[in-house]
Parts: sequence; structure tokens; C-alpha cells
Amino acid sequence: MLMIPGPTPVPENVLLALAKHPIGHRSGEFSQIMADVTANLKWLHQTTNDVLMLTVSGTGAMEAGIINFFSPGDRVLVVHNGKFGERWAEVATAFALDVVEVTAPWGQPIDPTAVKSALNADTTKAIKGVIVTHSETSTGVINDLETISKDVKAHGALMIVDAVTSLGAVNVPIDAWGLDVVCSGSQKGFMIPPGLGFVTVSPKAWDAYQVAKLPRYYMDLGKYSKGAAKNTTPFTPPVNLIFALQAALIMMKAEGLENIFVRHQRHMHASRAAITAMGLALYAPEGHGSPAITAVSSVEAEQIRSVMKKKFDIVLAGGQDDLKGKIFRIGHLGFVCDRDILTAVAALEATLVELGHTGFTPGAGVAAAAQVLIK
Amino acid sequence: MLMIPGPTPVPENVLLALAKHPIGHRSGEFSQIMADVTANLKWLHQTTNDVLMLTVSGTGAMEAGIINFFSPGDRVLVVHNGKFGERWAEVATAFALDVVEVTAPWGQPIDPTAVKSALNADTTKAIKGVIVTHSETSTGVINDLETISKDVKAHGALMIVDAVTSLGAVNVPIDAWGLDVVCSGSQKGFMIPPGLGFVTVSPKAWDAYQVAKLPRYYMDLGKYSKGAAKNTTPFTPPVNLIFALQAALIMMKAEGLENIFVRHQRHMHASRAAITAMGLALYAPEGHGSPAITAVSSVEAEQIRSVMKKKFDIVLAGGQDDLKGKIFRIGHLGFVCDRDILTAVAALEATLVELGHTGFTPGAGVAAAAQVLIK
Repeated sequence: MLMIPGPTPVPENVLLALAKHPIGHRSGEFSQIMADVTANLKWLHQTTNDVLMLTVSGTGAMEAGIINFFSPGDRVLVVHNGKFGERWAEVATAFALDVVEVTAPWGQPIDPTAVKSALNADTTKAIKGVIVTHSETSTGVINDLETISKDVKAHGALMIVDAVTSLGAVNVPIDAWGLDVVCSGSQKGFMIPPGLGFVTVSPKAWDAYQVAKLPRYYMDLGKYSKGAAKNTTPFTPPVNLIFALQAALIMMKAEGLENIFVRHQRHMHASRAAITAMGLALYAPEGHGSPAITAVSSVEAEQIRSVMKKKFDIVLAGGQDDLKGKIFRIGHLGFVCDRDILTAVAALEATLVELGHTGFTPGAGVAAAAQVLIK
Repeated sequence: MLMIPGPTPVPENVLLALAKHPIGHRSGEFSQIMADVTANLKWLHQTTNDVLMLTVSGTGAMEAGIINFFSPGDRVLVVHNGKFGERWAEVATAFALDVVEVTAPWGQPIDPTAVKSALNADTTKAIKGVIVTHSETSTGVINDLETISKDVKAHGALMIVDAVTSLGAVNVPIDAWGLDVVCSGSQKGFMIPPGLGFVTVSPKAWDAYQVAKLPRYYMDLGKYSKGAAKNTTPFTPPVNLIFALQAALIMMKAEGLENIFVRHQRHMHASRAAITAMGLALYAPEGHGSPAITAVSSVEAEQIRSVMKKKFDIVLAGGQDDLKGKIFRIGHLGFVCDRDILTAVAALEATLVELGHTGFTPGAGVAAAAQVLIK
């Protein structure tokens, strides 16, 4: 049982779609699937912008979202408060961009006023793009993308968003918020296995693309856009993953966007209530937890993960880099139902009892989670 | 029924492996799978060099095979005689390499002496790398990689090979021939769906990597090598495709490399004999046909493909670019057995009869193929 922030659980009918025999990617049948999937991706992304599919993991999608719109030496503001945000600074640096940063400590949300100040100070408009991680997977903190995006829009820089663990789990209204480039990956909210990356591109971002000089070929989004206009792809697509995506998007449409977002919120609240009731410490401060993932501070993080895996066959994620051994993370995005949350909490209680925790009443975690879930 | 040069047919047990529920990619279980798969990939590639897996299509693998080893302005010799070879010149140009070329017309093999002359003329050793397409998918022509690689080795440039439709179908003894970088894709000889690319890297290529300055992050092979040393990956891998790869490699080991190569040779000869017996013209000259794919010249190429699809549900590939409507291509690589060849030939005969061809004795194609197959 996977309770990590990707790969996430995959529904049975999506697995069956994955197992279908591949078809030719230059066939009329495949073009129809591409047309269907693209229309549903636009629905999911709440946008009329291009939504392009690449055969890459989430990092590849973010790299494509960066290198297509800038030239060497262009200044970008990278806003980061965790491992993945730091990675986008590394990518931008690797491609010779001039990186300036607004940061917050790991586990804390970005202060939107700090971003606003940095943008206000940029009177020459040297900053060409702002790169923000919406839901920081490494810490379970969600950033206030709506506020930040308003300030970026007022400044005029391109707004580039890592929505890898937020898309399909949290409201990311691309058109309403004016997000120029939004990147995500298949093994998260999309409920399918890893192997596909998604990048949305606004007309303003296409204007930047026209003059951008960073070298690119496989990740050249212009090629994908040309292909998409004819319901095809520039390079051989992972046809089986696209079968799976088609099936998953049909399920998501049946559930409805609003219901999906409410479900993820409910699971976050239930998880957080349970963690507190079990006497454990939440890593993300109240009001800034990601609906996709709940991080828990514990010096016993690795023992807890080990018992959860061995005794209950539930996989939780550990901390990354400096947080290794200091936190564990419960993924609750994608194909997760109320029962899964109760199951994880119940197993976590039993694990704590096994490890000799006495600072809570056994059953209190499940009771707290249930109270949220039955509301 | 897929008879195109990728995606190729996928065995049932590989499809079932694909449909398994994903597991965490940072788990001990997954590391074991990585170790197993990597060992079998080295067997398949006949090499002790690193064999790295990337979440990309074949073009991505080739791009990784080029950009990791050069700096802007470095001279590379691109040897090409078809669409895919031309693409590597485009990639190298996109990354500001100084591209020189040795070419042959589409449908003709590269003359190895032309490559040798170009290398001999390079007395200052300005050419840092030579990029060769082994089996040119667009034309069904195979190039004399063994001879070319000897001359490249004598010169000292890096030998970079597009083995996308040859790896797993044709003998590519990487260590014996001293091939520095060899790139391929999952949906060809590997018998699994598209979505994984493979790149092998020799110690000499790693030396070049150390000083190469082209920008890279997602495709930085050093990151993949570091990961592979610990049986992991730098970015989330397509775990389901790797399950499928594991199953496919076990099948390939059971068949044996020599048997696999002999089977592909037999299918090429059977296809070519049948095409000739049906009064159609082979596009690749005798002795230069690819064991992976047989191209046939015909002004009726599109009608033939259409009847084959509609009447017999067999998908053949068409011509690309200037060859559109002038050739069709029969893919016979990967999971293809003698029965498949007979089936395709029999259906092609029936198609020709339907289209009013009279220049051959119905049955002659199947008879000619059978004669090769029963040898």
C-alpha cells in the first residue's frame, strides 16, 4: 500500500488500460486518443493554453518549462523552501541563467511579501521569469501561489510553476491566476505510473519562446505544440501510459474537479488531526500544509517507516537530504479514499504502540481522523 | 497486428508485468529490480560499460548520447543516409556543435571508405566525435558499423551510435567493436512499450564527459551513473516499464543472443525473398537490408497500407518526408516469430490481388518466405 508522494496508487481499470497492447503512434486511432486526452487535460488544468505531454519525469517537465523561455544570462527569480525548489535553482544555474532567490527555511511557507519586495525592487525589469514550487513535496508545505502570481503578473515576468504534487489534488486555476508555464508529472494527482510530464504554455510564454536562445531539441516545446495541433507527438510517445491517462482522466471527470479538491483537503485535515491526537508533531505549520502530503517530525522516523512497512505493508516516505531520519511523509494524493486514510492512521497507531509510545490514548488518532472524515 | 518499426509487439507476460501495481522507487525491492535489470542490460549490450536508463524516447536517448560529451563549437562528424541520421545532425546543430557530414542518398548504405577519408583528412584531430546510425529506420538500410568503428578508433574520436532499431535485433558487440556511446529505445528490440531510453558509456566517453561544457541537467548522464552505482535513479523512473523490461530481458536471455540475431536475419531474408517473388521492388540493396525492417518501393504504398489495415488489421509503416507514398516498411524486430512473417506476406499477397496486381503468381510470396523459414 503506497502512501508516498509518488508513485501514487493506480486504479485497477487504469492498470488494465496500461496493459493493453500498444498501437501505432502514427495511426488515426492514436490521434483520436490524443485528441480526447488533450481535451481532458485542458479541463483538468482549467486552461485554454496548450497542455503538452513529454516522455520525461517531473524534473524533465520542469526543465522543459525553464529552458524553452530564456536565453543564457537571463535573470530568473527562484522562490524556494525545500528540495524541489532548490532543484529548479540548480537547473537554471546549469543552463547559465542568472539566478536570484527568495527563500524560506525548509518546512516554512514562502512569505509572499518577500517575493513582492524582490519584484518591486526590480525597477529595470531584469527579472524575466519567476519559478515557484506550489506544493513542496519534500516538506509537505504549500505556498500561496495565488498571491504570488498576482504580484508576478503586475511585474510582468513569466510565472513558472512546479505543480508536480498539486495538479489534480489542489486547485490550480491556470487561466484565472494567469500562470504562464505549469509543470507536472503523471505519477502524482494523475493516478497513473511515472513516465509522462506535462507542461502548459500561455501565449505570453510562447512570445518568450520565440526569442529564447537556450539550446534544446528533445525538450523543444515548439515541436510538441506543432505535433499537438495535429493530435500527434514529435517523438514516439509512451502509448501505454497514454492509454492509462485516458482512463484516469475519465475517472477524474466523473468525480469532478471540486470533489477532487475537497477530498484532498479532507484527507489533509484528517491526517493532521490524527497526527496531533497521536502526540506527534506536524512539520508544516497550520494553514500551510499541502493537501497532497503530510510531513511528521520524529526522531524515530526511520523506525516508524520500517515497522509500517514490515508489519502492515504500508510504504511511507522518509525525509530527504538534511531531513533524513527527522521526518516521515504520508502521501495522500491521487487515488486515495477515506478508508485509506483510516487504514494508515490505524496502522500508525499500532506502530507507535509497538515502539513504546505512551503519550497518547490508543485509538485517539483514528477517532480524530474519523471526526474529520464523517463531517 | 503491429508490423512497424516501433512500437513493436509486446509479449503477454510483459504486458502483465506492466500492469502490476507500481512500488516505491526508493525501496529495497525496487533497487533489487534495478540491479537485476542492469545486469541483464549489460548482457544484452555485450558490454562492461555503464548502461544507463532514462525516461525518454529514442530521440532523447540520442540527445543524451550527444550533449554529455561535447562543448559548444566542438566538431562532430555525422554520418547519415536517412531521416534519423539527419536528425542527429539537427540535434548537434541545435547544441552549437560544429557539424561536418558524410552522407549517402536515402536508401543507400554509407560507404565506409568515405568516412575513413574524412577521418584521414582530419590531421589536426579536430573531429571529437563521430555519430553513426546503425540501422536507419526510415529506409531499412543497415550501415557497416564494424568497419566504420575500426576507423574511428584508429582516429581517436568518440564513436557514438544510434542503435535504436538494431540493439536486440542485430549483433552490436559494444566492447568488441569499441563503441563509446550506444543509444537505443525500449519500443524496438526490447519488446516493451515506448518510454525508456538506454545509453551506454565507455571509460573514454566518461573522460570526455568530465570536460564537456554543454548545459545539461535532466539528461546529465553523470547523475544516472551515480544513481546506478547504488541501484537507483536520479529522477523518478517509469517503474512499470521497468517491471516490463525485467520480464522481457528474462525472455531474451532464455532465447539467447545468437538465436535472437539469427531469427532477425531469417525474417529479413524471408521478407526480402517474398517481396521479390511478389514482383515488388526492395528499397534497400541486397546485402544492406536491415534485419529489423524491410522497405518496399511502390507508388501504391499508401493503398497497400490501407488495405492491409482495413482488411487484415495489419499495420505497416509508410515512408517519411520525401518517401511518403513511395515506400512502405515492414517492421520485423522484437517479438516476431516465423508465423508472423508468413501472416504478413500472405496478407500482402491478398492485398496485391485486391489492388489488381497481375505480375506475380498468387502464393509465390508465401512460398518464397516459407523456403527461407524452413531452412
